[in-house]
Amino acid sequence: VPRPVCRVTFQPEGRSVFVLAGTTLVEAAGRAGIILNQPCGGEGTCGKCRVELLSDAPPPGDHDCRLLGMEQLDAGWRLACQLSVDRDLLVSVPWEARFFEQVILAEGADASYPFRPNVRKVVVRVPGPSVHDQRCDLDRLRGAVASRGLQVDLSVLRSLPSALRQGDGAVTVVLEGRKVQGVQPGDTTATLFGVAFDIGTTSLVGALVDLADPTAHGQATLQARTNPQVHFGDDVVSRIAYAQSHADGLQKLQSRLVACLNEMILDLCQERGVDPDAVHEITAVGNTTMSHVLLGIDPSPIAQAPYVAVVRDAVDVRAREVGLDVNPCANLHVLPNIAGFVGSDTVGFALAAGLLRSERVQLGIDIGTNGEAIIGNRHGLVACSCAAGPAFEGARIHHGMRASEGAVSKVVVNDDIEVGVIGGGRASGICGSGLIDAVAELLGAGLIDEMGRIADPGSVPSHVPLSLRRAVVEHDGQPAVVIVPAEASRTGEPILLTQRDVREAQLAKAAVQAGIEVLIRESGVCLEEISRVLVAGGFGNFIRRSCAKRIGLLPPVSGEKIEFVGNAAATGARMALVYGDSREEAHRISRCSTYVELAGRADFQQRFADALVFAKPDGS
Amino acid sequence: VPRPVCRVTFQPEGRSVFVLAGTTLVEAAGRAGIILNQPCGGEGTCGKCRVELLSDAPPPGDHDCRLLGMEQLDAGWRLACQLSVDRDLLVSVPWEARFFEQVILAEGADASYPFRPNVRKVVVRVPGPSVHDQRCDLDRLRGAVASRGLQVDLSVLRSLPSALRQGDGAVTVVLEGRKVQGVQPGDTTATLFGVAFDIGTTSLVGALVDLADPTAHGQATLQARTNPQVHFGDDVVSRIAYAQSHADGLQKLQSRLVACLNEMILDLCQERGVDPDAVHEITAVGNTTMSHVLLGIDPSPIAQAPYVAVVRDAVDVRAREVGLDVNPCANLHVLPNIAGFVGSDTVGFALAAGLLRSERVQLGIDIGTNGEAIIGNRHGLVACSCAAGPAFEGARIHHGMRASEGAVSKVVVNDDIEVGVIGGGRASGICGSGLIDAVAELLGAGLIDEMGRIADPGSVPSHVPLSLRRAVVEHDGQPAVVIVPAEASRTGEPILLTQRDVREAQLAKAAVQAGIEVLIRESGVCLEEISRVLVAGGFGNFIRRSCAKRIGLLPPVSGEKIEFVGNAAATGARMALVYGDSREEAHRISRCSTYVELAGRADFQQRFADALVFAKPDGS
Repeated sequence: VPRPVCRVTFQPEGRSVFVLAGTTLVEAAGRAGIILNQPCGGEGTCGKCRVELLSDAPPPGDHDCRLLGMEQLDAGWRLACQLSVDRDLLVSVPWEARFFEQVILAEGADASYPFRPNVRKVVVRVPGPSVHDQRCDLDRLRGAVASRGLQVDLSVLRSLPSALRQGDGAVTVVLEGRKVQGVQPGDTTATLFGVAFDIGTTSLVGALVDLADPTAHGQATLQARTNPQVHFGDDVVSRIAYAQSHADGLQKLQSRLVACLNEMILDLCQERGVDPDAVHEITAVGNTTMSHVLLGIDPSPIAQAPYVAVVRDAVDVRAREVGLDVNPCANLHVLPNIAGFVGSDTVGFALAAGLLRSERVQLGIDIGTNGEAIIGNRHGLVACSCAAGPAFEGARIHHGMRASEGAVSKVVVNDDIEVGVIGGGRASGICGSGLIDAVAELLGAGLIDEMGRIADPGSVPSHVPLSLRRAVVEHDGQPAVVIVPAEASRTGEPILLTQRDVREAQLAKAAVQAGIEVLIRESGVCLEEISRVLVAGGFGNFIRRSCAKRIGLLPPVSGEKIEFVGNAAATGARMALVYGDSREEAHRISRCSTYVELAGRADFQQRFADALVFAKPDGS
Repeated sequence: VPRPVCRVTFQPEGRSVFVLAGTTLVEAAGRAGIILNQPCGGEGTCGKCRVELLSDAPPPGDHDCRLLGMEQLDAGWRLACQLSVDRDLLVSVPWEARFFEQVILAEGADASYPFRPNVRKVVVRVPGPSVHDQRCDLDRLRGAVASRGLQVDLSVLRSLPSALRQGDGAVTVVLEGRKVQGVQPGDTTATLFGVAFDIGTTSLVGALVDLADPTAHGQATLQARTNPQVHFGDDVVSRIAYAQSHADGLQKLQSRLVACLNEMILDLCQERGVDPDAVHEITAVGNTTMSHVLLGIDPSPIAQAPYVAVVRDAVDVRAREVGLDVNPCANLHVLPNIAGFVGSDTVGFALAAGLLRSERVQLGIDIGTNGEAIIGNRHGLVACSCAAGPAFEGARIHHGMRASEGAVSKVVVNDDIEVGVIGGGRASGICGSGLIDAVAELLGAGLIDEMGRIADPGSVPSHVPLSLRRAVVEHDGQPAVVIVPAEASRTGEPILLTQRDVREAQLAKAAVQAGIEVLIRESGVCLEEISRVLVAGGFGNFIRRSCAKRIGLLPPVSGEKIEFVGNAAATGARMALVYGDSREEAHRISRCSTYVELAGRADFQQRFADALVFAKPDGS
């Protein structure tokens, strides 16, 4: 009997997800894109993940009773990490339970940055000139701002005389440090916005943030899109090949991307009722190829051994120089990268996770087509790129699909195969987390052996229940496992896990596993010294740590050390927007990270070959 | 009998002028636009103005014999200040005799700047990336230039990967201080040019300078044009009025000016066989309105009391931002100004003359429609603007014209009226220096009295020779003087100096005289403390100091203290191009100058009224 599926709705977003009963509320929130605080690793000891149940609440557990008073328990407050979903729920998630706040406060004594956007507005009264004050317009402005060191560019000089002579002498000065970005007549200090972008090879995420209101704590309006460059190739290497083989290739890649970002900006602004002209800064993270393309910098060197970037440091340019339609003087800040295949998204991740602020050693993993891993503490970081390939994004998998509605995202094997489907309807394919679950659970059930072979239909081990044996079928002359039977699928065809699918999963996980092993070795720490393993990316929201560990995708540390941190790269971009001081840390992350090139290393090749074999259940 | 006119040709320019016999060679050179060294004030004691006569040389004088050896005398060397032209001459002017060198060496111990253009090229070998050197392109470039602090902008990053991968690994880095202006494949260090502009209300002067060759000493190819903005008004106030009364007025003024500057750049480059892309810096001086218009900054505040500029400091922008067609990354440096009506041309003048480097007090005067005067020494400067009006440029004068071919530029009154005509042909009008000469000489002859009245034809003083008396005629019911009789003029009509012309000259000279008097008073020095009076501007090349003093246009200091320094503003612009360190001095000149606003001052009004009266011959 499949376990019941429950609907969980989160407020104030109003976002709903369907999960199998038994899923923790933290995981359910993660599927809804809401990453909760778990500094204790989900052990129920810190109380940071407490949420308010607006619907009928399940009875409190021991940890709830210990950490929450009777009054709170009666009002429906529960620890999300301890709550096992067994019914439909309506949950209100307060801001202090959200990861965005947590990452800033998590590690290190100096972890908390003041709200200090790189761009700010001040309103000043500039006296008109007189016979006794014949200072030029700029000198009178400098006097009013009380800074002789103000830097102005031509656009400011061109707008200065009219701004000073409109209205009643009050002008708003938009400042980027000591640089004047613009002057506006009157007092416009109430309106100041920024946008943070995470530019992925496949997905674009944008966040509109109010930079005028320190009490908003960087709360953002969000937008996501598919990167329109997917028409030019699925991965960065094929994008670069496109740019190299077409005369206007780079220009086309750049303009497509920027056109989409401009749509996002427009939608974000409309949703919030904001004039795009009020956006005075944009921050961006992305893999190194994407950030080069955004800036119109030829990424070719990244595709040729030894795979170097053109520029590693952060780049600040006028947003209009790359075609972004916001305030004409707005600044675009692209965070620094670490190497050709470890981008500013990894720097953003490390920034959000506070890797360089902590004495404790932490390991960050972002699994995707180009997965990155970074390890270290305040004394230094080591990073590498793992070419996992697109298997975990559903590509090259027989019934593979992206983690969208209709995808099998969870598989539980007991006497039967039970699945969780994104959106709760009938399944139409398997996404990355479903693939990991399926392989891990079938390994546990004995239907897949350590070498990754699916048992022949005729030779399934005898301890396997009969109901499971029936799931093994033959496909293209090789064994396969029916994950969803034909009668339960959207297509009317059974959804299979084929022998080739398992091979793809083996190759992908082996690349990640071997990469992380080399990385840990290079960093000089042993496994026990790692205090946290942070798993980032949208992908991470859906996978179960036990299954990921079972197949070797995540290192064999205890479960409570593994945290899913959501789109930490985007969080890093938002931090750079809201906490100007964090840019210095991003610079240090970039410069204090040693890049390990895996390609061509003998130890990597050896570990990769070893990692193709699944570990035995005891972890040996 | 008119004195004979001699043709003097200067080498290596090949420029010819026609002068009246008796003119000094220094003055003849000035008319040809070649300003000679005269640190001794033309007394023949320093030997700095020695030139080589390639044609038959007049016999040497006492000073020649004292300062030049027999060998040099035999070879045709003479002191230009001592040589009175009495025949056609072919003269070779060595660089060391030219004012451009002199101003740099003239005053103060630290007066000589090293050849150090703001923009320079270095060629470096940047190693390709390897497994052992995975630094990004920019870091490898920084390593090769041995400067981590290099600043690059987006255009550099965009050109970097291809520049590094063309040719043999050698790249040329174009540097502006620590800023990288551009990178070019291969070694292009031999080619680096700059252009210096003097942007006058009426005239534009451009100089193309080789910045790669320190031995060229800033030698320049020159071009001059009429400012095409004259179509929109003769003076800055009418230009500003045009900008204010037309929606696209400023844009039109700016684009007309830039189009003309681009033509000049093209011509300069063609003349020298230089690709405009090799021009990496442009410096510009001009009155404050012109420099604002060049930059596209609204000059309106300059036209409204209290006449302030929008910006006083130097402005550096990409030349392409204002539309100048040189290297796309070239820098435009507009020198700082002092006030709305004392522009960067005055700063350039003060820079060329070394006013702020000298312990001695010097007075600089630039006479034009908007004349400026500046006085002081290393301890500070005081400047003012004298609204002389356009009389000295030939406007509002009955037969007035600009100082071009056919203009009477010199008048000598003895028993008769003798004139010098620019170009040597028949006269068609009177230019500014001719007007000054005429008024001064007729004052001396008694045909004009101290109040500026021309003697009635019937009541000419009895001591005036008969030949002169005949020159006085009646015109429009008032007396006038025939400067050139009908039979000697180009038009067949007599060229007259009318009573109204004398009034215009009185008004103009009174404005300058009163302004200088107030300025000297404000500076706290007395007349005797002034060691040099430097007269700048094309105008200055043609006037005779005795006549200018006679009418009160120049202060009553001894003649040897007066020096004509040619287009010193343009020299300042060239200094800023060739001697990067001089920009700091230009900044100090701007900031250490106190501006004196004459309008509305009671003491100015009083002195102006007094100055309308010509002084008696004894100087009282």
